[in-house]
Amino acid sequence: MKITCSKSKLLEGVQIVSRAVPNKTTLDIMQYIMVEADDNFVKMTANDTDMGIETIIEATVEEPGKVALEAKIFLDIVRKLPDNDVLIQTDERFQTQIICENAKFNIIGKEGEDFVYLPGVEKSDSVEISQYTLKEVIRQTIFSINENDNNKQIGGECFEIKENLLRVVALDGHRISIRRIGLKKSYTGKKVIIPGKALNEISKIVPGDADKDVTIYFMDNHVAFEFDSTLMVARLIEGDYFPIDQMLSSDYETKIHIHKQSFLNCIDRATLLVKEGDKKPVIMNITDENLQLKINSTIGSMNESIAINKTGKDILIGFNPKFLIDALRVIEDEEIDIYLVNSKSPCYIKDTDGKYIYMILPVNFTTVS
Amino acid sequence: MKITCSKSKLLEGVQIVSRAVPNKTTLDIMQYIMVEADDNFVKMTANDTDMGIETIIEATVEEPGKVALEAKIFLDIVRKLPDNDVLIQTDERFQTQIICENAKFNIIGKEGEDFVYLPGVEKSDSVEISQYTLKEVIRQTIFSINENDNNKQIGGECFEIKENLLRVVALDGHRISIRRIGLKKSYTGKKVIIPGKALNEISKIVPGDADKDVTIYFMDNHVAFEFDSTLMVARLIEGDYFPIDQMLSSDYETKIHIHKQSFLNCIDRATLLVKEGDKKPVIMNITDENLQLKINSTIGSMNESIAINKTGKDILIGFNPKFLIDALRVIEDEEIDIYLVNSKSPCYIKDTDGKYIYMILPVNFTTVS
Repeated sequence: MKITCSKSKLLEGVQIVSRAVPNKTTLDIMQYIMVEADDNFVKMTANDTDMGIETIIEATVEEPGKVALEAKIFLDIVRKLPDNDVLIQTDERFQTQIICENAKFNIIGKEGEDFVYLPGVEKSDSVEISQYTLKEVIRQTIFSINENDNNKQIGGECFEIKENLLRVVALDGHRISIRRIGLKKSYTGKKVIIPGKALNEISKIVPGDADKDVTIYFMDNHVAFEFDSTLMVARLIEGDYFPIDQMLSSDYETKIHIHKQSFLNCIDRATLLVKEGDKKPVIMNITDENLQLKINSTIGSMNESIAINKTGKDILIGFNPKFLIDALRVIEDEEIDIYLVNSKSPCYIKDTDGKYIYMILPVNFTTVS
Repeated sequence: MKITCSKSKLLEGVQIVSRAVPNKTTLDIMQYIMVEADDNFVKMTANDTDMGIETIIEATVEEPGKVALEAKIFLDIVRKLPDNDVLIQTDERFQTQIICENAKFNIIGKEGEDFVYLPGVEKSDSVEISQYTLKEVIRQTIFSINENDNNKQIGGECFEIKENLLRVVALDGHRISIRRIGLKKSYTGKKVIIPGKALNEISKIVPGDADKDVTIYFMDNHVAFEFDSTLMVARLIEGDYFPIDQMLSSDYETKIHIHKQSFLNCIDRATLLVKEGDKKPVIMNITDENLQLKINSTIGSMNESIAINKTGKDILIGFNPKFLIDALRVIEDEEIDIYLVNSKSPCYIKDTDGKYIYMILPVNFTTVS
């Protein structure tokens, strides 16, 4: 193999596929990037079998061929090369030279006969979504999953398509985060659970252009994301997702309208009195026109009042502050509505258009003023 | 005590004195900041006895008094307050309220009767240096000390003043870094060893204004740095410093003139083939007009040539790349001169004006192609 390409294009490609290289693995070959030069293009692939990424880079191919290069060292080398054309050539023993200006690296490559390529992608069933929207919807929900839970479904997000609507749901045992997005056209219904790891990685490698799309392909056991010259394939989480709609209620006894940033800053301040690992709730005392937030800990106490619009009953309720902060941080609205029933029932932060619902369970607290 | 001051001034003050609060200590009171309100000003002090900092902040004092507040929580609270006036008041049991807009914090303070104040500063013997220059000279030398060495003197820097020159020296067993700075006037001679920790902290809290000075006070066992409204006092390291001048030589057999950034980038690239903790030298083969840099490791090999101007003999010499990188990073000159004797003798990177000397010992290497 003998190829030439620009350092910047090469770096971009190696960085993208490196996202599929696991930190630890028992299978040595998973630490490698497979570089394949065809007559006209160069393809790089990395795959840990739960998730794989391939990308095509612009290059001049003098001699087709392939070589597997250890991902970490390959990335380190490319990153530090001068900003110029890079020549990569391998001999029959897969010794690889990487040459740029006066710098010449020699590393030992592999044939990679045990390399596992991406599973074939059936392109029959697909959905288009803008790069920007995909990144955003993941950011706005992913904090609610728990990848360490015994229940594997909690480690993924449910992507559900009905006609021209995509609903993304993430939950752990304490909260549910839901985003609803309008698509440009209607599709046949689908519902899959995509692992959190794949979603985290795809949201990092997608450039996030609002004018460019990602195509999502739905298969029986896999999902694939395709954008620009890159394809990611991830294994789906098996089984049925939780019956979300049965868990949600639109009844409420109290509704408050509050300035989001003031509320967020206030909870943020209260939280600093809580030592890490300590599960102190923030207690909100909601009365007419006023939300008083209180926290008591071994370090000290804090209270602060925020002006609100309230309809319905007064209520005293406690929450894990982290759950409120997580949700408030990803809501764009300046003013938000919060719906409450009683101190034992979940609260709902939601808009009137159904674009988002954040359900959070309250926590018990002992009332010491 | 009852005082009011702006959040920004308060935060600046708490951040500065927090630098003297040790992470771990057996003495509880060292984790506290002493806040003292006199009729006209508020002074904050923290002191771990090796190093202490006090700073004056602008404030309106309604009721003089004092209180010791736990540094970490005090800093956390102030940092998260809204950007407005802050009221701090304590009762007779040192319960402390911190109030800003609608946020009201209660924390438990202390009388601080066991608090150790800064030692008195004799202001008879002092030197003025610009804030910028002090920060720079520390940055340009501090990497050469070793605070974990058995020899305490290696954990500090030698500040030596002769007439209108300040010479700062730092060394470990493998290298010596020297900077010489012209002062605005002449002073009586002095020579002290200042602990690395104090220098690191002072270089962080000094704003670095080129038009403002730091006054350095020299005492028998302490040194003090005064700037703006802040005073830091540090205990000196006892004993005589190393006889540096005897260690330096100006003889050389080979002199090379090289582009600093190209050389630095080249060493940086070579280093990526070295696993952390592995002590692989970079080998430089210096011939006429050419410096060839080579590294061989278990990961692979790299070689690169750089154009140089050389006078004197050819030489093959190996160095710990980190030591070269440390020195090259802090030299401002675009082109530098390196002086060499033979493969067993130190190299000197130095300018012709005597502003800097970086001496680095070579390392042995086995010559495998």
